[in-house]
Amino acid sequence: MATSAGETEAPQAEFQRARMIRFSDCDPAGIVFYPQYFVMLNGLVEDWVSEGLGIGYHALISERRIGLPTVRLEADFRAVSRMGDRVTLGLAVERLGSRSMTLVLRCFDPASGELRMQVKQVLVTTSLESHRAVEIPQDLRTAILRGAPSPA
Amino acid sequence: MATSAGETEAPQAEFQRARMIRFSDCDPAGIVFYPQYFVMLNGLVEDWVSEGLGIGYHALISERRIGLPTVRLEADFRAVSRMGDRVTLGLAVERLGSRSMTLVLRCFDPASGELRMQVKQVLVTTSLESHRAVEIPQDLRTAILRGAPSPA
Amino acid sequence: MATSAGETEAPQAEFQRARMIRFSDCDPAGIVFYPQYFVMLNGLVEDWVSEGLGIGYHALISERRIGLPTVRLEADFRAVSRMGDRVTLGLAVERLGSRSMTLVLRCFDPASGELRMQVKQVLVTTSLESHRAVEIPQDLRTAILRGAPSPA
Amino acid sequence: MATSAGETEAPQAEFQRARMIRFSDCDPAGIVFYPQYFVMLNGLVEDWVSEGLGIGYHALISERRIGLPTVRLEADFRAVSRMGDRVTLGLAVERLGSRSMTLVLRCFDPASGELRMQVKQVLVTTSLESHRAVEIPQDLRTAILRGAPSPA
Repeated sequence: MATSAGETEAPQAEFQRARMIRFSDCDPAGIVFYPQYFVMLNGLVEDWVSEGLGIGYHALISERRIGLPTVRLEADFRAVSRMGDRVTLGLAVERLGSRSMTLVLRCFDPASGELRMQVKQVLVTTSLESHRAVEIPQDLRTAILRGAPSPA
Repeated sequence: MATSAGETEAPQAEFQRARMIRFSDCDPAGIVFYPQYFVMLNGLVEDWVSEGLGIGYHALISERRIGLPTVRLEADFRAVSRMGDRVTLGLAVERLGSRSMTLVLRCFDPASGELRMQVKQVLVTTSLESHRAVEIPQDLRTAILRGAPSPA
Repeated sequence: MATSAGETEAPQAEFQRARMIRFSDCDPAGIVFYPQYFVMLNGLVEDWVSEGLGIGYHALISERRIGLPTVRLEADFRAVSRMGDRVTLGLAVERLGSRSMTLVLRCFDPASGELRMQVKQVLVTTSLESHRAVEIPQDLRTAILRGAPSPA
Repeated sequence: MATSAGETEAPQAEFQRARMIRFSDCDPAGIVFYPQYFVMLNGLVEDWVSEGLGIGYHALISERRIGLPTVRLEADFRAVSRMGDRVTLGLAVERLGSRSMTLVLRCFDPASGELRMQVKQVLVTTSLESHRAVEIPQDLRTAILRGAPSPA
């Protein structure tokens, strides 16, 4: 499945978690303050690494000293989310490089399917000592690939 | 159960929810940034009103225009919570007045029972038009009393 | 200066404000938690509207009920910012449409000029009653155009 | 000036900073979300240590690995603050112990003098390695005492 440049095609399964929009997520307009979507989606990445991949996100950060900072993102905000809304957050891996990966993260209304926002985000694995990019740890890479669909 | 001054003794049952300490809850010391405990506990109040009392917290705010601001709190922080910790948040009503209530909220480790922090908090029901105190709505009062233990 | 499609070329002057990176902006890695950049830059938009354009951002929201939600953004994070860093936040208008505008916002080290992050962001003026797009209010448009350079 | 128990009476001068209430400080009721006051006041403590005492708050944390966690607070919220309000934040030292200090922090309207909220807060100096209390560093103690009024 790996390509010549060390790139790997995306697994298609979407990792999902339900989330309620809280009072503290909302601004004086009564809707989600957009930076708060990134906080929610950061939590989804935590859950994906820990529960979806079984790697232990917090140990990765605090013991193994590997960070997952975002180096680029493109976000579209399509419809507002209001306090009390029950939304679904979804994550799919679009690209797996040697030191970075591209995730597609989104928030949608599970009842109507209405997309609230979507973001394509490039994360890099870094050393938290030097803040420099390092190879994606082998166990993380293997777990991501295991989640990928078999080649046709 | 009501006393002469319109005060009511506290229901003893504690409303609880599990919560994981997230990366975004923590500060550069790797532990929960203490204002974030109040954000977590505000979420617990939401869940208590909506799920514990069955009142609809978000409709209370956005449709009925009743706010639940805090007018006083006393908090003790006993032990640190770290990223990845699975804690339990608990809420009990200590006092139910005519326009205010006193809640005891806490965060503890469900495995060891270790108390991380505890706060006694006075909330007032207000009109969100005037920001002035109003009587606790009857359905909210009834639901809180229903949760109270029978007098011995 | 207006073009056929109701688009206007960008004023070049950059609106700037100094900002110190605070403890509360940072994550367990000791660097700015990236959603916090968007909170900082939202504050810069407030200052630009109120002080740069002289329009009164808060009255725009709370009295005139005009919102400025973000509908799209593209951000690049180039270098980390640490607790205690003194950075400059800058804003320039790249495009002024009839109901939207594109801003280029950035955070850089004023001493070395090092770019920390940059975001191109599309904001829409909306009615806070309907959350639908409305024409950019005339006083806001005029003030933005006044800040624009004269055509050569 | 030191008393028998290693306690020192409070310096009376209040360290102050102006602050504007921002959109991101406010909740769907259009007023400051109360945990946000603690974030603002944490920033005031930073400014007091760095600028008022000349100690270098961020180096204290990240290089000297001394933390200043809050172990207890009592807060009263007296009047609401709205988006756009220009408030003053004030800090005074009420008590200086060997490993802890009690601060009185407040937010008020400088025009009318109206108190918005006030908090009495006990901070402990800790080792960020062990999260245990340590003696207040001598330079910090000396700088705090220098700000204290002479005994009558």
